[in-house]
Amino acid sequence: MIIVMQAGAPEEQVQEVIRRVSELGYHPHIIRGTQRTVVGAVGDERGKTKLQSLEALPGVENVVPILQPFKLASREVRPQRTVVKVGDVEIGADRLALMAGPCSVESEAQLLDSAYAVKAAGATILRGGAFKPRTSPYSFQGLGEQGLKLLAKAREATGLRIVTEVLNPQDVPLVARYADILQIGARNMQNFALLNAVGEARKPVLLKRGMSATIQELLMSAEYILSHENYDVILCERGIRTFETATRFTLDLNAVPVLRKLTHLPVIVDPSHGTGYADFVAAMARAAVAAGADGLMIEVHPKPEEALSDGVQSLTPARFAELTRQLALIAKAVGRSL
Amino acid sequence: MIIVMQAGAPEEQVQEVIRRVSELGYHPHIIRGTQRTVVGAVGDERGKTKLQSLEALPGVENVVPILQPFKLASREVRPQRTVVKVGDVEIGADRLALMAGPCSVESEAQLLDSAYAVKAAGATILRGGAFKPRTSPYSFQGLGEQGLKLLAKAREATGLRIVTEVLNPQDVPLVARYADILQIGARNMQNFALLNAVGEARKPVLLKRGMSATIQELLMSAEYILSHENYDVILCERGIRTFETATRFTLDLNAVPVLRKLTHLPVIVDPSHGTGYADFVAAMARAAVAAGADGLMIEVHPKPEEALSDGVQSLTPARFAELTRQLALIAKAVGRSL
Amino acid sequence: MIIVMQAGAPEEQVQEVIRRVSELGYHPHIIRGTQRTVVGAVGDERGKTKLQSLEALPGVENVVPILQPFKLASREVRPQRTVVKVGDVEIGADRLALMAGPCSVESEAQLLDSAYAVKAAGATILRGGAFKPRTSPYSFQGLGEQGLKLLAKAREATGLRIVTEVLNPQDVPLVARYADILQIGARNMQNFALLNAVGEARKPVLLKRGMSATIQELLMSAEYILSHENYDVILCERGIRTFETATRFTLDLNAVPVLRKLTHLPVIVDPSHGTGYADFVAAMARAAVAAGADGLMIEVHPKPEEALSDGVQSLTPARFAELTRQLALIAKAVGRSL
Amino acid sequence: MIIVMQAGAPEEQVQEVIRRVSELGYHPHIIRGTQRTVVGAVGDERGKTKLQSLEALPGVENVVPILQPFKLASREVRPQRTVVKVGDVEIGADRLALMAGPCSVESEAQLLDSAYAVKAAGATILRGGAFKPRTSPYSFQGLGEQGLKLLAKAREATGLRIVTEVLNPQDVPLVARYADILQIGARNMQNFALLNAVGEARKPVLLKRGMSATIQELLMSAEYILSHENYDVILCERGIRTFETATRFTLDLNAVPVLRKLTHLPVIVDPSHGTGYADFVAAMARAAVAAGADGLMIEVHPKPEEALSDGVQSLTPARFAELTRQLALIAKAVGRSL
Repeated sequence: MIIVMQAGAPEEQVQEVIRRVSELGYHPHIIRGTQRTVVGAVGDERGKTKLQSLEALPGVENVVPILQPFKLASREVRPQRTVVKVGDVEIGADRLALMAGPCSVESEAQLLDSAYAVKAAGATILRGGAFKPRTSPYSFQGLGEQGLKLLAKAREATGLRIVTEVLNPQDVPLVARYADILQIGARNMQNFALLNAVGEARKPVLLKRGMSATIQELLMSAEYILSHENYDVILCERGIRTFETATRFTLDLNAVPVLRKLTHLPVIVDPSHGTGYADFVAAMARAAVAAGADGLMIEVHPKPEEALSDGVQSLTPARFAELTRQLALIAKAVGRSL
Repeated sequence: MIIVMQAGAPEEQVQEVIRRVSELGYHPHIIRGTQRTVVGAVGDERGKTKLQSLEALPGVENVVPILQPFKLASREVRPQRTVVKVGDVEIGADRLALMAGPCSVESEAQLLDSAYAVKAAGATILRGGAFKPRTSPYSFQGLGEQGLKLLAKAREATGLRIVTEVLNPQDVPLVARYADILQIGARNMQNFALLNAVGEARKPVLLKRGMSATIQELLMSAEYILSHENYDVILCERGIRTFETATRFTLDLNAVPVLRKLTHLPVIVDPSHGTGYADFVAAMARAAVAAGADGLMIEVHPKPEEALSDGVQSLTPARFAELTRQLALIAKAVGRSL
Repeated sequence: MIIVMQAGAPEEQVQEVIRRVSELGYHPHIIRGTQRTVVGAVGDERGKTKLQSLEALPGVENVVPILQPFKLASREVRPQRTVVKVGDVEIGADRLALMAGPCSVESEAQLLDSAYAVKAAGATILRGGAFKPRTSPYSFQGLGEQGLKLLAKAREATGLRIVTEVLNPQDVPLVARYADILQIGARNMQNFALLNAVGEARKPVLLKRGMSATIQELLMSAEYILSHENYDVILCERGIRTFETATRFTLDLNAVPVLRKLTHLPVIVDPSHGTGYADFVAAMARAAVAAGADGLMIEVHPKPEEALSDGVQSLTPARFAELTRQLALIAKAVGRSL
Repeated sequence: MIIVMQAGAPEEQVQEVIRRVSELGYHPHIIRGTQRTVVGAVGDERGKTKLQSLEALPGVENVVPILQPFKLASREVRPQRTVVKVGDVEIGADRLALMAGPCSVESEAQLLDSAYAVKAAGATILRGGAFKPRTSPYSFQGLGEQGLKLLAKAREATGLRIVTEVLNPQDVPLVARYADILQIGARNMQNFALLNAVGEARKPVLLKRGMSATIQELLMSAEYILSHENYDVILCERGIRTFETATRFTLDLNAVPVLRKLTHLPVIVDPSHGTGYADFVAAMARAAVAAGADGLMIEVHPKPEEALSDGVQSLTPARFAELTRQLALIAKAVGRSL
């Protein structure tokens, strides 16, 4: 931490800061500049949040952190990249992980149609919501456990692995009984009770970035799960809130190279939620792979115009198959495969 | 809903839209413009999310909703303003509700000192976190039930009412046993499992706006609680995420007049989290009252520089007392009292 | 500047940074932390942008500036507050400056009606656009010099001072011939050619914050004008771009206390553009005064529904008169007058 | 336009809206819904801004535009894609346009070194700023005409075409004398005086998206230039302002497929300004090509750590050469060439 004093802060205020820094177990280091005095606090970073409160002391202008606040998620701690294994599917390896399926599980026919179609096109993981977080209490809220059973049936029928969202800490054991990967949705990225619960489950977790979460906050939420010694965390960029309304969210592909620099965890991208419109999904899926993503999550529905949720952003099976052919070419161009 | 066709959409696509609109139980109404055809769907608004998926039909450019999606929260349904009663304290009435106290409950001494101080300055409700949502798993997470007990003790000692946050649906009965008002934090505004749980509790709920939530989404989250027939919902503006970094968040006071126009629910403002710096709290607290807020939530700590969380934005008791004197004048200027 | 080295950066990279810092005329100061080495660069801040490029050196993680980049605009340089004098009207003094009038000058009748009405209600400065920046080339672009002549006529008739926007550096002498205050619009806040031109004019300048400009950037743009020794700069908050769509922009009142802390320049607020809707103007105008603004700029039009621009956000003369009565009470509550 | 009445608006208010719509030359079309009445205004779209002001009428809730406000830039008007020709270089054709060079022209040696290097790696257009828009008046402002002369010299020496920014309408003839493409920077995207001036110049224009401009606003600014019958407009995505600070801006690649859907104009991407860090440029450049961009603009400097501006985001010639090898593979994968 660097503690910047106000211009003209009297010596006794500087001395008070030095006293407090020492008291908290750090070694103070003073730099007297031409305009300002700066106090460095040297020492183990644990408990550094206590230093932050020194900003409330008289004469202190601000307190600047020097270290990244995440540890287990950091590449500094673990330089080699994590590969999450889900049965025989690997996420974070050279072969891209393709997750696809409907927004919500609506019926057996709808789910199986979707599952066979996405498998035929190259997907290895089936997505589908049984518990749905909906902005409106009047919207379809998902089939619940019945939906989970249909997902398990689809796995049996197709061999695809299953990723599905969990909303309530209490439901984690139930969902973990059926799913191969537990999904934490964007709206729950900082639902710490839920993060702790999936940290305790012995299942891989797909953690979606909150729509107003910084990349650092995403990594701090991953840190919650990792701190329970659940190391199988997959990060997912799915669009952030900005002023632009031509897309439903702004898919932030910059997060891909930033995360590859900061963390060893695999990173996938969801261009369906990220853009909100089927017409833009293919371009952004290709771009995600070119940027270095480890996989994609894409909404596919046999009849988008009849979907109970998110029809506007769902691809038909035919469009999805066409997309996977394009993705195979991009994957090859960046030294990977589909 | 208004369904806008693409320019030059052939007649059979228009007819298909008309057929679907009828099929879904609406009365279609066609306007043929010079460039585009538009189809209005007239009928009861329930189930309108199904219409939204028509955007996936060929020839449809977009689907424009006409009605606000919230009902119970709307002033159209209930024009008279809601007053939430918490013992003898009213929120939404002429007298402003002043909630104040430390970010976290840290110890009996810290809490009681805070409680006596804020009461002396005019507060009627004590805030204090026992379960703390923290970005980092390594930060202080709150005292849990021990903190709740200290809050109850402070209530007994001072007569102040208690507002405190609940993070986990499972904890709702526990927290409801101690608190007078259950707080839903900004990070949980769209934690629908938690909204349903506090909807079921027979306690007033303080619902904070998510840091990237639109005002419409805030009202939809209130709708979740109201739809459980828990009508005692207090809305709270606490700052949104923008590009500006001079403040920790951007306190969006515009939300106050917008909410007063759209809803009958009371609206309070939290300038401590909204700005993130003690130096800006007084100005924004005054502004909130002038804009028409029904109350304020303000962080006060006996020794901000030693706070275990949010010391930078906490007022000392002396600064808080000075602020309430200013607020009384502003309240009077807008025809209210403190 | 603080230069933070990467964890594990080898000693020769640290030495290279030290060498460069010295070479650029600063005194290097090394702090060796437990995880990282940090190099402070002590010396006169001029030319510090050169230090920023050191971030491109091997082993450097980032370069953190310690000082604010503005000087002439800073309260550190000039603690007493600036009062801009426009004839007998003062901006930045105890009495609030009330600027009002139509968005565009449309006709003599429209302008004079507006001028008499806003004067009667307490305004001392008349606003009105002769050169209009319009998103669309097909929208009304203003009356040009004819509009300036009408403004001059309105000044003669009413004694009000005139503020009007200038768009093109070439037009500065022309506009300065008619106006008392030159307005730089939000879209031109970083039009540096225009800032230099109004810096050279011997006229007060009203500088609006760009809709995606940080407060620091606003002060840097003021610095451009001040650096031409034109010290009569008035800052204006008028709403920033965020994700919220219930208001046209998000009026950022937090800017008021932030600017009062950072700068000696007067600060006014434009709630008409800031909210985009007449219904929200009064609440935000009151809030601005309560937050400490030195004045307001408000759009008033005799017949908003016939306005050639911005009718939706314009007050009628009657609503404006009602607002000024409210403002007088708020002004008094914060120790000022209208 | 669709004019939505408030719930319960009395019949006379509806009739008044109908009267005004007719008066303004539109054909009114009424839909009476179960909750609300809606009035469609059918007719030629010119002058539709006048309809917008009807939102100020009593009983009107809001006015919803149906048509996009741009015309000449729209694919509806011109379905075939525009190819801008600059000598023998084409922008918008199958072969990608690669623009590269230093942020600022600093010296003959620096510019020629850059030019030879980017040419060797495959660039066909040299970028370099002679007039620099700088946030601070104390930063390097560019060499002015001397810089333009060096650019012309570099063109002579290498055969590369030249793109350079113009800041002041007055300077357009001067810059047009030296440059092959006139660049409008992000901060000037809504500098309408400048847009009109480059519209009048008979030179191709590279129009950068403003950092808080919507895609629709970008197209409206293009419309200004097109309306002067200058049809050679190249659009450039360069990053928008969001809350994320891990990158300097958020490069919004979603704009690429959105623009390809809405307009016939070519679209290029600037990942150097878009991310602000050299480490992220390659990933985002690849992603831009995969998303369908027609070209790239990339900052390359022989010695980034000595650059007078933007060193942190500049590639060395070696990194740039490596990038172009990757880009050639991605281009091939999407059916294009470099």
